[in-house]
Order: sequence, then C-alpha cells, then structure tokens
Amino acid sequence: MYDDIVELAKRRGFFWPSFSIYGGFAGFYDYGPLGVLLKDNIIRTWKESYMEDGAIFLDSPNITPEPVFRASGHLARFSDLAAECEKCKSKFKFESVLAFNKQDIIPANLEEAKEMASDTYLKCPVCGSRITNIYDFNLMYKVSGDYYLRPETAQGIFVNFKLLFNYNRGKLPMIVGQAGKGFRNEISPRQSLIRLREFNQCEIEVFLDPENLEFKSLYDYKKIKIKPNTGEELDITVKEAFERGLISSQAFAYFVLKTQNILENIGIESSKLRFRQHDPDERAHYASDSWDAEGLIDNEWFEIVGIANRTDFDLNNHQSSSGETMTTKIEEREFIPYVIEPSYGIDRILLTLMAQSLETRDGKNVLKIPYPVAPYHFAVFPLMKKENLKEKAEYIYENMKKQDKYIVYDEAGTIGKRYARQDEIGTPYCITVDYQTLEDNTVTVRSRDTAEQKRIKIEELLDLDFINSYIYKK
Amino acid sequence: MYDDIVELAKRRGFFWPSFSIYGGFAGFYDYGPLGVLLKDNIIRTWKESYMEDGAIFLDSPNITPEPVFRASGHLARFSDLAAECEKCKSKFKFESVLAFNKQDIIPANLEEAKEMASDTYLKCPVCGSRITNIYDFNLMYKVSGDYYLRPETAQGIFVNFKLLFNYNRGKLPMIVGQAGKGFRNEISPRQSLIRLREFNQCEIEVFLDPENLEFKSLYDYKKIKIKPNTGEELDITVKEAFERGLISSQAFAYFVLKTQNILENIGIESSKLRFRQHDPDERAHYASDSWDAEGLIDNEWFEIVGIANRTDFDLNNHQSSSGETMTTKIEEREFIPYVIEPSYGIDRILLTLMAQSLETRDGKNVLKIPYPVAPYHFAVFPLMKKENLKEKAEYIYENMKKQDKYIVYDEAGTIGKRYARQDEIGTPYCITVDYQTLEDNTVTVRSRDTAEQKRIKIEELLDLDFINSYIYKK
Repeated sequence: MYDDIVELAKRRGFFWPSFSIYGGFAGFYDYGPLGVLLKDNIIRTWKESYMEDGAIFLDSPNITPEPVFRASGHLARFSDLAAECEKCKSKFKFESVLAFNKQDIIPANLEEAKEMASDTYLKCPVCGSRITNIYDFNLMYKVSGDYYLRPETAQGIFVNFKLLFNYNRGKLPMIVGQAGKGFRNEISPRQSLIRLREFNQCEIEVFLDPENLEFKSLYDYKKIKIKPNTGEELDITVKEAFERGLISSQAFAYFVLKTQNILENIGIESSKLRFRQHDPDERAHYASDSWDAEGLIDNEWFEIVGIANRTDFDLNNHQSSSGETMTTKIEEREFIPYVIEPSYGIDRILLTLMAQSLETRDGKNVLKIPYPVAPYHFAVFPLMKKENLKEKAEYIYENMKKQDKYIVYDEAGTIGKRYARQDEIGTPYCITVDYQTLEDNTVTVRSRDTAEQKRIKIEELLDLDFINSYIYKK
Repeated sequence: MYDDIVELAKRRGFFWPSFSIYGGFAGFYDYGPLGVLLKDNIIRTWKESYMEDGAIFLDSPNITPEPVFRASGHLARFSDLAAECEKCKSKFKFESVLAFNKQDIIPANLEEAKEMASDTYLKCPVCGSRITNIYDFNLMYKVSGDYYLRPETAQGIFVNFKLLFNYNRGKLPMIVGQAGKGFRNEISPRQSLIRLREFNQCEIEVFLDPENLEFKSLYDYKKIKIKPNTGEELDITVKEAFERGLISSQAFAYFVLKTQNILENIGIESSKLRFRQHDPDERAHYASDSWDAEGLIDNEWFEIVGIANRTDFDLNNHQSSSGETMTTKIEEREFIPYVIEPSYGIDRILLTLMAQSLETRDGKNVLKIPYPVAPYHFAVFPLMKKENLKEKAEYIYENMKKQDKYIVYDEAGTIGKRYARQDEIGTPYCITVDYQTLEDNTVTVRSRDTAEQKRIKIEELLDLDFINSYIYKK
C-alpha cells in the first residue's frame, strides 16, 4: 500500500518531493492541490474536536531565540548519535552504522558509543573504511543570529503560560493547542512523509493541577488496543487500563481515548491503530511517561501521535531560566501545573489515512476516506460535452459552490474515466447531468463507496440541508 | 486607533510580542487565542474566495535550498542598504541614517551610498560618531547547510510550475495559491504587526498566456480608489482604469477588483482602502509593475496587499538555472506564461481590520468586525450563576456548539460586564438565559452593533438555519 500511495499521491497531486527541478532535497515534501485540502481538513478536524473540550489556540513563531531551547533542554539534549567516515566523509546515524555492522547493542550515550567504536571495527556502509569519528549531532536547525527553528511547537505555548492562564481566567485544566511547522535536521530522513526535516505538527498541552490529574469522565464501553511496556497487547477500555494502573492518570487515559476518537473520525481504522507505551530509555528528555498512537501500514507500525507526560519539567525550567514565575494558586495551594501532551504528526496521519483507505474495485483504485476530510465532497459532470448538458452542469456546480467550496467540475473524458478519477482521489459523490435532466430536472448521484446511483431533483441538490446531510453523515 | 488596538490585542488575547519572558525579540509576535481564530478566518475567506475562481493550492517548505534563490534573484538582490557604526557597533538601515542626518536623497545602489558616506559626515544616531561602513544586507535568513528561509511563498509555486500545470490539465489561466510563513531578517523591525521578521503571507500566482492577459469579465459599476504613479488619486471603476491605460492589462484590473472585494468582505472599509501604483524605482527586482492595496490607520496608509506583474521573470530564471523547461504549448504556440501576483500580508490585514473596526459606545470599546471573520459568532450566558439558569445555558451552549464551534460560554461577572467583554472582542451576538427562559423557553439575543435585544425560542436557536442566517448575512 505504501508504494501505491506514494505513486498515486504524486500522479494525482496529493504530495511529491520538494524542489525536484533542482534535483530534490531529502526530507522535504510539498503538498499539491489535493494534499493541501486533505491536510487542512485533518487539521480542522483536530482543532474543532479539541474546541469541544474548551481548547484555546496559539500561534507562535518558527524562529525561536536560543534561551528558550537552553531552558527546554533541547540545546543540550535534543541530539542523535552520529558518525562520520573520515575517509569518504559520509555521515550516518550511529544506529545505522551499528545495524550495518550487525551490532545489536545500542549505546546509551556518546561515551559508550565512542568506546564501542574503539573496541570494534565498525565498517563505513559506503566505503568500508573503519569509522572512528562519533559525535552528538543536535537536530535543531540554526538560523542566522542566535536563533533556531523550533523542533516542536510546544515551547511557544510554555513560554506564554502566564498570558494564556490569565486569558483562561486562572482556571485549570487548561487546554492549549498549536498547529504549525516543526523542524528537525535529520541525519537520514526517511522516505516520503515518514520522517521529514520540516513537518506539520498539531500539539495540545493540557495543564493540570498535579494533585488532581483528572479530566472529563471516561466512558467505559469502548475497547482500544494498548501495548504497555510491561506486557502484551490488550483490547481494553481506557477506564479499565487506568483502574488497573496500566495508564498512569485519569487525565492521561482521557486523552488516549480522545486521540483514538479523533483518529477514527479522520478515518484511521480502529483495527489498525494501537497505543504503545515507550520503554523508559526510549522517552524524550522531558517525558516521565510516553505512549505512541501507532498506525499500521503494510504490517509495520508507525508513530502518528505521541502522548507524553511532561510533568512540570518545561514550566519549571522556564521559571528558573527566565526568572518569571510559572506558579499558579488554586485554593491557597501554589504550584506549577503538570502537562500532558498529545502531539499529532499530521503528515504521518495523512499518509496512514491514505494507505489504509486505498481499496481496489474491478482493478481500479478507490480511496475510501471519510466525507469530512475528503479534498472534494462532490464532483459535477455533464454526461457529454454538449452545450445544453454543460450549461446545466455548470449551473449546478456554481450554485452548489456557494454553499460548499469543496466541489469540482469535470467534463474531460468518458463518464467512466471521470468516475474512476474521482474514486481515486476520494470524492464521495459524483453528480451527473444527462439527457433525462433536461426533461425532468433530475440528476444522478453516484456513491464512491458502493458505485450505486440514485436520481434526485436539482432543487434538492441545491438545498443546504442536502449538502449537510451528505457531509455530516459518517 | 493603532495604540488602542495594540493594547486591546494584548489584554484580550489577540496578539502580543513573542518570548516576552526572555525580554522579547524585535519583529516576532504571537497570536493569542482570539487572534488565531481571527487570523484563520481571514485566511479561510481569502482561500474560499479564490476557490470560487478555480484556484488550486500548494504547501511547500519554509526551508528552501540555495539554488532556488540564486535563480530567483533573491540571493543577489533581496537586500537593504545597511550601515554599521564602527565605534558603537549599532546597525541601521542606511535610510534611517540618512533620515537622522536630514538627508533627502536616497542612493540607488551600494556604490552611490558609499560615495555619499565619504562625501558627507553622517552621524551615528546612537553615539554620534561618523558612519563609514556601508554594505548590502541580504534580508534572507540563512539556515544550517545551504538553505534559506523563504522570503516569500511564491518560489515554491514557481519551481513546481510543471507539476501544477499538469495537474491543471495544461490549461491557462491557472491560479495557484499558497498560505504560509515568510521570513525577512529586517534590520529594523517596525512596531507590532507592521513589519515582522516572520509573517503570514497568502500569495496567489496567476499564470496567463502573455498574448491573452485576460481573466473573467470586469463589471463596471463599482468605483474604487486608485493612485497611479503618474497622477492624482481617482475614484474609478477598474474597467475604466484599464480602458484608459492606467492599469496595464484586463487580468491585472480583475485582480485589483478581486482584492478590493476580498478586503471588503473581511471588513476593511472601502473609504479607507486604495490602490497605489509603485514608482519604477520602488518595485521589487522581479516586477515590471506593482500596485499596493493600502489600508488607512490613523491617517497613515499601510501596504496590506501587493499586486505585482512578475511577467515571465521567475519561470524564465528557473528554466535557465535548473535546465527544466517551463514552456507550455497552446494552439501550436510555445511560450513561458506570464504571472500576475496578488500577495496578501495577513498580519497587516488583521491589524488594519481591527483598527478600522474599533468604535466606542457609551465610553466602551465595540469591535465591529464582520460575522464571518469574528473569533466567536455567539456567546451564551446564564443571567446569573444559579444552577437552573446555568444548566439551561450550558445545554444551549453544548447544542449550538455541535453546529458552530465558534461559540463561547461565560458566566463570570455582571451581565453588563459580559456584554462589554464580548463587544470588545467582536462577538456579534450574545444569547442570555434568564428567568423568563425557565417559563417559556425563550432567550434574548443581543446584537453587538446595535445593543438591541430580541427574544426568540430555544428550538429556533438550535436550528442549523438560525446559525447560518446569522453567520452568512453581511
């Protein structure tokens, strides 16, 4: 599925490698016309879903001054172990060098890595020479002056905690979201949207009273897949997982479930979605506990959302570094809030959604993505390129567009080809104007998922309720 | 108005200086919770308005490899004349040094500037020493490796021309838009949102057959203000302006009018909006003609949209530099398309909108921004914090939110204070649950603009048509 989607994505205008006329640059991808619509719909779904829980949003710059990342620990600790071959000058993640040399042990730090390289003859994967130069490679992009491109949107929220808390009238829990770009100077970017140097991130920071790590109540009838770091994969409700101590707090359990629901609404299949708890040595430097929502593509699980317990790590550090207090007072207790962070990797969600939605029918691609996120909700066709049919089809197109912009007009090629084209880009409904339309003002509406057609009246079609009934049904 | 808006913006959570806990960094601003909603609504208005004309969209990375900007001319020519005081090390735009020294003549290039500095004793505005070190300062931010942060989103579109043209099935005109960030390492950023180092840009590139610089027909009944570089300000239709040769092509005139309409829909006042043509020496290096849409704040005109005739400058350069052909063939003629570019400065549009919309009534602020862009469409209040009133108000809030996420609940303070708060953040309608509600299931709906109230039934309120009738009326 992965290869099929990457091919389809480029051919149909979802996404493609950036700057290809200049030879391409690893780790950068463009969203083409359909990809922009799909991505924006995914982000809107995320945003509106958190608005239902009272979230507020922030937009802070990509360019961020050094003191922020000195405080957050990114300057010292946001790095990968890297290796350079002194002979051929190739650069690698140290992990890749180890894998190439069939070494199983992953060193915990630079010291250990250097020791390994001096004890073992590690061959350069490119030229075969011995690799001895091992170093910490900081993943942040440096910008002229003492600035960096943010590796996560979260810090923009943390440094604004006081202003946001004030906006929120001093109430906890407070949910703050930010949709934006993140940047990581990956030593070895992976294919397509899986590991980008510049990526789309939607982060949520939930600020909580550490003595009351609770959010809304958990309903207990829905089972999800979880894989704690202490045992096997389970199908379990988050309520039970919390009560059995598998998930550390009620609030954490709530946002696991929330994430499951958002991903399902976007169109990720629940059977191909699980929550895997990080092993202690796998966690980011700021996290005391982390779970990844993983989506399945071609029998491989990929992280698509990371949910971390950041405790008071970041606010504490910014308080020490800036001298500005980050404490809040609730009922005479003064404390620094705790943070739970569900962080959504939009590019990977989009890729997973497309890969999981692709089916074939009669040997042709059908992209069964849900209506609310589909790039176009409707396509309008004249059956043939005849003036009277075209006129009517254009009339319908122009009038539907007043109510729903996500609509496309197409008159090129046979009707069969046009259906196939819309099936492949995931348009749920095609509306065709034919000769009968000229007689009785009815059109056919064809469903992408079933290929079934039914006739309805044009007046019905132009009614806002019609469009809503199609868009909002699952 | 400017100062009032900046104060209101920070106090109410529209925008504020970034990284203030670390002392603030000139040229960077955050959008707070209300600003994010307002900004996103402005961008949506822009996007949907161009979708009506058949625009397609692209999202390309902020980080852009050097060859792109070598071809586009930004590496050589996207610079300001700068001056450094060798004594106190202060850096200035050379223009500012000239203004401080009361010099009227602006040099055309570095040579002339150096000459001026050697002929004239130019005092440092900070320490008074003579300034002799004049240089070209490139405004692009450099990123680790041979990368730059894009100074405009446009190049991402140009380098993808062939893929986009293919997506568009080889048809011209083709409209491609990109909403994203732009970055300019300004020597002297101006206050608040006026000149940012990182800014929100919505660019449109219209690709046209150079022998047919026409777009849709121009209607001729609407007069707008234009100020050609050859004469005085006029109230004129764009059709007449084109026919009299004041605007160079029919298509250019179309996008001037389109811009006027979009800005009016967003809420910019037509009496405080004009199109000013650049003088030849004022144009960017890629433009053969440029007009700025300018908005009026406090008797000063600010550029909010720039419309440039980029001709085939960019595609031509990318063709030579990359070796990839950028020509198209239409009816046996082979040519490189011409480009007209309306480029929207979203931050300045937002600032202008807020400044122009602020009125006072009974000594209190009322932000009269149009319904479609308002951060919240509705606020829901219980008259008092009593359980039965709250319960009903929360019921209404939760149910309206299912249909319209742009809604806020408030129970803090007197009802008068709550009305004032919503007036100041631009919420068009407040819905209040009072004792009569408990008897007859009616609520009051109060208009921000008139302060008038009327009673309507709760069932009506929860009807989708009600919400739409409010949102979509002007």
